[in-house]
Amino acid sequence: MVRGHRKSPLALHLLQRRQPRCNGGPLNIPVNQQRLNAELEELATFSDAPAPAVTRVLWTARDLQARAYFKSLCAEAELDVREDALGNIFARFEGSEPELTAVATGSHTDAIPHSGRFDGCVGVLGGLEALRALKSAGFTPRRSLELIMFTSEEPTRFGLGCLGSRTMSGVLSPEKLRSLKDGDGIDFETARHEGGYTGELESVRLPEGCYHAFVELHIEQGPLLEAAGLPLGIVSAIAAPATVKLTIEGEGGHAGARLMPGRRDALLAGSELALAVENAALSTGAIDTVATTGFFQIHPGAVNSIPSRTQIEIDVRDIELERRDAVVSQIRDAWAEIAARRNVSGTLETLNADPPATCAPSIIQASQKAAAALDLPFHNMVSRAYHDALFMARLCPTGMIFIPSKAGISHRPDEYSSPEEIQRGVEVLALSLAELAS
Amino acid sequence: MVRGHRKSPLALHLLQRRQPRCNGGPLNIPVNQQRLNAELEELATFSDAPAPAVTRVLWTARDLQARAYFKSLCAEAELDVREDALGNIFARFEGSEPELTAVATGSHTDAIPHSGRFDGCVGVLGGLEALRALKSAGFTPRRSLELIMFTSEEPTRFGLGCLGSRTMSGVLSPEKLRSLKDGDGIDFETARHEGGYTGELESVRLPEGCYHAFVELHIEQGPLLEAAGLPLGIVSAIAAPATVKLTIEGEGGHAGARLMPGRRDALLAGSELALAVENAALSTGAIDTVATTGFFQIHPGAVNSIPSRTQIEIDVRDIELERRDAVVSQIRDAWAEIAARRNVSGTLETLNADPPATCAPSIIQASQKAAAALDLPFHNMVSRAYHDALFMARLCPTGMIFIPSKAGISHRPDEYSSPEEIQRGVEVLALSLAELAS
Repeated sequence: MVRGHRKSPLALHLLQRRQPRCNGGPLNIPVNQQRLNAELEELATFSDAPAPAVTRVLWTARDLQARAYFKSLCAEAELDVREDALGNIFARFEGSEPELTAVATGSHTDAIPHSGRFDGCVGVLGGLEALRALKSAGFTPRRSLELIMFTSEEPTRFGLGCLGSRTMSGVLSPEKLRSLKDGDGIDFETARHEGGYTGELESVRLPEGCYHAFVELHIEQGPLLEAAGLPLGIVSAIAAPATVKLTIEGEGGHAGARLMPGRRDALLAGSELALAVENAALSTGAIDTVATTGFFQIHPGAVNSIPSRTQIEIDVRDIELERRDAVVSQIRDAWAEIAARRNVSGTLETLNADPPATCAPSIIQASQKAAAALDLPFHNMVSRAYHDALFMARLCPTGMIFIPSKAGISHRPDEYSSPEEIQRGVEVLALSLAELAS
Repeated sequence: MVRGHRKSPLALHLLQRRQPRCNGGPLNIPVNQQRLNAELEELATFSDAPAPAVTRVLWTARDLQARAYFKSLCAEAELDVREDALGNIFARFEGSEPELTAVATGSHTDAIPHSGRFDGCVGVLGGLEALRALKSAGFTPRRSLELIMFTSEEPTRFGLGCLGSRTMSGVLSPEKLRSLKDGDGIDFETARHEGGYTGELESVRLPEGCYHAFVELHIEQGPLLEAAGLPLGIVSAIAAPATVKLTIEGEGGHAGARLMPGRRDALLAGSELALAVENAALSTGAIDTVATTGFFQIHPGAVNSIPSRTQIEIDVRDIELERRDAVVSQIRDAWAEIAARRNVSGTLETLNADPPATCAPSIIQASQKAAAALDLPFHNMVSRAYHDALFMARLCPTGMIFIPSKAGISHRPDEYSSPEEIQRGVEVLALSLAELAS
């Protein structure tokens, strides 16, 4: 038996074991790198920002175009497509024992303003390519495989991320969903109906154990794999994120005529808070603590008008829940002091404060076996970004596969993973799915 | 002769002197308070923000509606209307000696986002009412009277205020105008042509001495008159404003995955600068120094993305030029330190740094005489806001008349001067114009 580079005995073994027809000769995972790359490029054209930037916000025309494109690709691949009331899309590759719980993979295609083309999309289109590769290798899984495109992993429109997976897992209630409004005051149900999804939100939630396993392929969004020169990360835990929101109400007025004493400038109060957020993160002394004020909008926003209102959203993450919560508390205390001293008002609201998730040993092992079969060295690592996997972990054993991000850049137009890096991730995903679906 | 309250002997004297037909009996200035009030309300409806807020930005549909409305009122009042290439509108009440240089009044109708209905508009529609009142009293001035609606006193669209008066007075060159771009990247000439103004910008500039005098009626935009219980302010000097602009370039990235060390967060750098601006103003110890960061916009503006860019506009004013310039220098020094420490880039650009203007004794006296004639007590005071009068002072003797602003509020939806206060201001303006045009 000849074993070429990355034509692995495990691939052979896995696939031979399931498909007695495919015997003899080394069996490759026939990932079509060019097709996948072309599809990623096509998906990136559905954007409200000019290339290379991507802006694709929930239920905008661009998001709907991306959804239609994804469904057309799934149909071409002869997967059975269904959608739930929230717009989560499920594409199924029926197994030989369809009554068994399925093995799922997937990610999201929505993109924050002026971001890149890989975050989320690699897990959706790469997941599709993994299924197509397994099909084209003549492999039929025992358990069905399901590819999921989750609705709005990014919090751009309604201030809360992972809407799809959060609701599927029961962490987010339909009542809470219905109470959301976007920045233009459009309520969630209006936006959802305009997006073409009209079913009962109550039907979105799935029971625990509904899947046998979930594995998400994603770009790292950090610099560790590139720095280590490794093609693969296998995730052991997903960090605990919290999102805090605040609207500061001060007092406006003419910038020339209103003198300095007694001003109640909402921008200055917000500026102090943003600096306090940074300080709170640094004060833990732990490299894993991060805190960011990523949304900061003032009103009315004219050079000669004192800012009367500032809207702020803060993101705090850590792999240790207690330390994360201590940082949130410290931010809360800083705000109380600033608000009193500057005579402005506003209540810090915690939009979400999710616990960290631990990845399932069974999935870590499946991914490690796949990596070994493909001769790929890897890091066992922590995921610091939000992922739908964080919520899928509440429904079933869950894991993640990371591929390198150039210079650790993400959420920017220059976010980049090479076609070769993506291909290797898809191969590992395909083998992991095959193993888990056996 | 019976002298009723505010039916003054000066009014009688002034008007009798010019119009021998109107002799005998006390002569009132027949300001039609109800009509003026209704016109101010009508003008406020041309707004991109819902009432009571007013947003009327240069060459938007709302601005064009306001212009059309103003011209229709001038035509009804039988004034001769002309417009220059920049959209400054001139409505002329021909004098008995039309070859003499005219006496002018006027202000602006554009409004910053979410501001009120009085700033500027009182000087435009009040100026019109003053001319109508003089006409309806049967008065014909010796010198022609001209009412000017200046283009874009507010800096909202192109970051630079007093576009009309600044260009008329030669402080702003047509080349510089043509180089401007708005926040959406639309260049000045495209916007101007879309607004319907296509003439040569070179023709806008006026020669020094082109007017005999200019008086602007305006709301105070500060609390002094109300606090003193006075109906009238007569301005002796207009403060020196400077506008400073800065785009901070840092580095973006994923808020979860990019760790704190080595971050180059453009929001945090901007926050420090905004606080330094406040500190610079306070450090002079002078009540007349004000500095405001009124425009502050971050990119990309998503909770889970580190801000990569912050655009800032700063307004610094003082009645002493040296002290104002020292504050601008201090801000510049603070920025150099912040940029170096946070490893971000961006160059402070001074968009304008205008010297203060001194009002002409001849005009102060005319307004004081008018006040006395109307039995109105007044403050001699300094104007701290930007006004077209600042630039008209370069062309001819210039003065300003202030009326009270409720609670000193301006550039806000709750900006308010009562119909009675406005009426008194218009009466003083009418008598001042009559005196100056004699």
